[in-house]
Amino acid sequence: MHRAIATVSLSGTLRQKLEAIAAAGFDGIELFEADFVNFRGTAAELRRIAFDLGLSIDLYQPFRDFEAMPEPQFQRSLERAERKFDLMEAMGAPLVLCCSNTSPLSVNDPARAAAQLHELAERAARRNLRVGFEALAWGRHTSRYAQAWDIVQRADHPHLGLILDSFHTLSLKDDPSGIAAIPGEKIFFVQMADAPLLSMDVLQWARHHRSFPGQGDFDVTGFFEQVLRAGYTGPLSLEIFNDIFRETPNRRTAVDAMRSLLYLESETRERLAAGNVPAQPQRVELFNPPPAPALSGLSFIEFAADEASAVTLGALLGQLGFRRVGRHRSKAVTLYRQGGIHFIVNAQPDSFARRRFEAHGTSVCALGVRCADPLAAVGRATAMRSQRHDSPVGPNELRVPAIVAPGGNLIHFVPEALGDSGLYETDFILEDAGPEGSDAGLTRIDHVALGLALDQLDTWVLFTRAVLGLEPGESLELADPFGLIRSRGVANADRSLRLVLNVSLSQRTRTARTLSVTGGGAVHHIALDCDDIFETVARLRANGTRFVPISDNYYDDLATRIDLAPELLARMRAAGVLFDRSPAGDYLHIYTESFEGGLFFEVAQRVGGYDAYGALNAPARMASQAQQ
Amino acid sequence: MHRAIATVSLSGTLRQKLEAIAAAGFDGIELFEADFVNFRGTAAELRRIAFDLGLSIDLYQPFRDFEAMPEPQFQRSLERAERKFDLMEAMGAPLVLCCSNTSPLSVNDPARAAAQLHELAERAARRNLRVGFEALAWGRHTSRYAQAWDIVQRADHPHLGLILDSFHTLSLKDDPSGIAAIPGEKIFFVQMADAPLLSMDVLQWARHHRSFPGQGDFDVTGFFEQVLRAGYTGPLSLEIFNDIFRETPNRRTAVDAMRSLLYLESETRERLAAGNVPAQPQRVELFNPPPAPALSGLSFIEFAADEASAVTLGALLGQLGFRRVGRHRSKAVTLYRQGGIHFIVNAQPDSFARRRFEAHGTSVCALGVRCADPLAAVGRATAMRSQRHDSPVGPNELRVPAIVAPGGNLIHFVPEALGDSGLYETDFILEDAGPEGSDAGLTRIDHVALGLALDQLDTWVLFTRAVLGLEPGESLELADPFGLIRSRGVANADRSLRLVLNVSLSQRTRTARTLSVTGGGAVHHIALDCDDIFETVARLRANGTRFVPISDNYYDDLATRIDLAPELLARMRAAGVLFDRSPAGDYLHIYTESFEGGLFFEVAQRVGGYDAYGALNAPARMASQAQQ
Repeated sequence: MHRAIATVSLSGTLRQKLEAIAAAGFDGIELFEADFVNFRGTAAELRRIAFDLGLSIDLYQPFRDFEAMPEPQFQRSLERAERKFDLMEAMGAPLVLCCSNTSPLSVNDPARAAAQLHELAERAARRNLRVGFEALAWGRHTSRYAQAWDIVQRADHPHLGLILDSFHTLSLKDDPSGIAAIPGEKIFFVQMADAPLLSMDVLQWARHHRSFPGQGDFDVTGFFEQVLRAGYTGPLSLEIFNDIFRETPNRRTAVDAMRSLLYLESETRERLAAGNVPAQPQRVELFNPPPAPALSGLSFIEFAADEASAVTLGALLGQLGFRRVGRHRSKAVTLYRQGGIHFIVNAQPDSFARRRFEAHGTSVCALGVRCADPLAAVGRATAMRSQRHDSPVGPNELRVPAIVAPGGNLIHFVPEALGDSGLYETDFILEDAGPEGSDAGLTRIDHVALGLALDQLDTWVLFTRAVLGLEPGESLELADPFGLIRSRGVANADRSLRLVLNVSLSQRTRTARTLSVTGGGAVHHIALDCDDIFETVARLRANGTRFVPISDNYYDDLATRIDLAPELLARMRAAGVLFDRSPAGDYLHIYTESFEGGLFFEVAQRVGGYDAYGALNAPARMASQAQQ
Repeated sequence: MHRAIATVSLSGTLRQKLEAIAAAGFDGIELFEADFVNFRGTAAELRRIAFDLGLSIDLYQPFRDFEAMPEPQFQRSLERAERKFDLMEAMGAPLVLCCSNTSPLSVNDPARAAAQLHELAERAARRNLRVGFEALAWGRHTSRYAQAWDIVQRADHPHLGLILDSFHTLSLKDDPSGIAAIPGEKIFFVQMADAPLLSMDVLQWARHHRSFPGQGDFDVTGFFEQVLRAGYTGPLSLEIFNDIFRETPNRRTAVDAMRSLLYLESETRERLAAGNVPAQPQRVELFNPPPAPALSGLSFIEFAADEASAVTLGALLGQLGFRRVGRHRSKAVTLYRQGGIHFIVNAQPDSFARRRFEAHGTSVCALGVRCADPLAAVGRATAMRSQRHDSPVGPNELRVPAIVAPGGNLIHFVPEALGDSGLYETDFILEDAGPEGSDAGLTRIDHVALGLALDQLDTWVLFTRAVLGLEPGESLELADPFGLIRSRGVANADRSLRLVLNVSLSQRTRTARTLSVTGGGAVHHIALDCDDIFETVARLRANGTRFVPISDNYYDDLATRIDLAPELLARMRAAGVLFDRSPAGDYLHIYTESFEGGLFFEVAQRVGGYDAYGALNAPARMASQAQQ
């Protein structure tokens, strides 16, 4: 498909936007009028800049408050249109977006709207330009695509067609299935936007909270499916008004934008293929990447360290019941193990890990994800515009393919065929150096929680969906004593791989302060599963592990909220264990104190089908951390 | 009145909150349950801490989802209530807030609600506690105070009364006038909250966007008037859920909170006094500060500088057509004048100005406001919890009373009786050193625009209303290429004094970057009036002043938006002058380039009754600045 994006979707000056859009591989742009009004150059100069960057100017937008007006306003608007047509000719934009009228002067008269749009199209036709009519969700008399299509049909002019925007249809919960019946060639342009489900005025929602397909809650593939069924072959474009995108570095936004279109195309392609209704003859080629990888949990977590901090971190891991079980064949890398959990401490000079250490201190620098077909997973990732990363590999060592996650950490795809320890048997000289403390019964990695800057949440949601095939859960807001945290879990279908994305809306929370140290995208804490949390906590305390203390008041309150056996409540109170219950099951958990003021661990026990992360207990943890 | 605040209204741990609340002079608190749940101490310990700080615990809140429930849930809730009553006894909290039920299990049966609340009140009475019932705006069956009052009357128990919250009434546009008919002693507690008018789900609005009285758009004094007419004599409290307050340093929030109550009391007092309906016999004493000052424009603006930057700044002022007309009798301070505008450049070592210079670079450090009665103005300010500032005064110099504005700059009150130049004739040795360039026809200070951190906007709105007697205008959002700016003008009634409060919602705009240099609360630009902008701009250009260039496209677009004489359009295009039109008049304006990357000037000409600031042209300026 011809892929485009509206200039309003990115931050920067118009020239910077065009450069970012071109670098991300787009074919064209929608020019947002305000960007041109404030551009210091002529329309012809803009045309040259776009041409040099390999971008077409597919659409000029918006042209407002035109149709169904009294005669004097109509004549003035035609004059206004001629001036915009002058510009479009000079910049080589073939199509203008005319959005449905919001003016109180407009009348509820589709026939008049059609007649006036006919005249506008006739003026456009004289210059070989075209007019696309779009129903704004908050249009005064025309707010749904079916109404706009009715008016376009009445106007009956070859230079007048329909423009569709998924936001305007899906925000009104309008049914997109009628789109398939519209002749594809009368749909002049399609804008795709997703959005989180919010209960607010649709205009405010539209102006501030749209997002790229795959970042929100709308059924955008369902919408796009109808567009394709109609036989549409024009540009596939993104028009996203989003307060955060306005401040996000535009190179990142442009990559997210392209990834979202590729994801939309590939998902819609699968949906069409799986559909029972036969699709129209395939008139456009949809992006067809390798399938999303089948992942099965985390094989390892790798920490960046230097010589000194590797020792400190090793001692901490010992307290957590890990045994040092190997050293790398060719690098200053140590392997720790407990149950099915592998932690790698990488203190190799001149390595990727060392560069991460220098930038961010002792921190997680890589995740190892078990994967049936690592090369296909990397193929999927690079197709979805992630970068592949190749580390130096010594003789007789395995090459584990890796990609770069947003923020710069690595994700390794560990072949499942190697079994639970194949990778380590190959790359490491195994030598059981014994524990610092005793095994604590930790069995596997439950989830990894990331602390993200505000403008990274949407990036991560899309990355984890499009590249890793994970699905996001509910978005929650949690009160830290110094501001709100937004928290959203993402997981694969069998829940063997879970990440939690935490964003601080404040600059003053612990999460934000950790971020300012680590530069964002950092692992905030690691949750480890066990089978008997009381036994595990007792052993960990005996090993010297310190946990964040929980107020007695928490347990008094818990008892008023949830019917619990008094013995269980007493054990939790004594151990400092937190509790959450869903209809499907329970979650018992506890947090360790921080390592060097940053990273900490969570010990968790899932009971039954509990499928969340105890987020409602996070305020107890954050308040406790703040009181220390 | 007994003044209180809910602990949820401030950031920090519970102990930090109590300390900030006590320091601001409050009498009591509402204890928000989550603050206690996460507090690491017992109820008795909390009671001691509050007692030591001179704070009473007036209310424990909230107790949710109680009334009008099926029998099994009702019995469980009574059990839950007994546990909360245990806590209230231990902490000495006499009253619990029971908010109307939101549970889908609750039934629409006021008689049952009343019977169950009666039982709750009976349980409370056994311990000499009381229950207050409040209608939540999103309560399932009870959302208005009249419904809650009906249920309280039916329940008819001396330990059950009504709790009123202005947010829940005013957000639903419910009429508060029925409150006056409720017996004052049956109103157990009153919570005051203001809010900006937003079109969103009332629950989201309530949880994230309340503000202190005087910071929002609600008629809070009208609400409070009805409460007083009812004969209410209980606590006056603030319960504010606000995302930004959650991260604002709590000492500032607490001062804002106290100021808002004092302002509410004094405004309501005036309203009662002015009312035609005779008030109830005055049963409570309302705060009675000196009246808001009568201000009449800016007499001077003072810049902080050192020896070197004083020279550079002087040269810039010369280019702007100012003459150096005096030096201070005892300090390294220089006076510049043009028309009715006085600029003071203060390079005195060891002065307030020098400390501001060292912290923020060359910047505005004080405003001089003309005032009929400066001492009364300072009295008003200190009554409203602003700090007085006294500078060293030399022999034969005038003492001009000053106060500290939020962020640390000074506001001097210059006696009107001194006339236009009396102050300067006394304090300065006048000596016309001649201009660097020629007079440019600038006549007066139109407005001063401030660049504020996000958490300072509400603080400034309240400060300018309560302390200076200004009134805020419309709040606008403006697109900078790197994020949104929120802009709000505040002005006195005759518009002789205007400030514009600009907040960057992004960290990457020019406004935000200036802030990060100057630490917030900084003067962002100064707008100066003239009578003929084309003549003034021509003279300024001849003097060497450089203006931010405006795109030709701006003028092409302007011509399509507004009917303008072609000659005027051509003159504006040639001069780079921007244009705005309101029904009342026109605004022509232009911006200079920045001084040292920060402060800049605006030259403006108001035509007719234009009453705004050309904010819609700010994006053209910001885009141009970004392209440089």
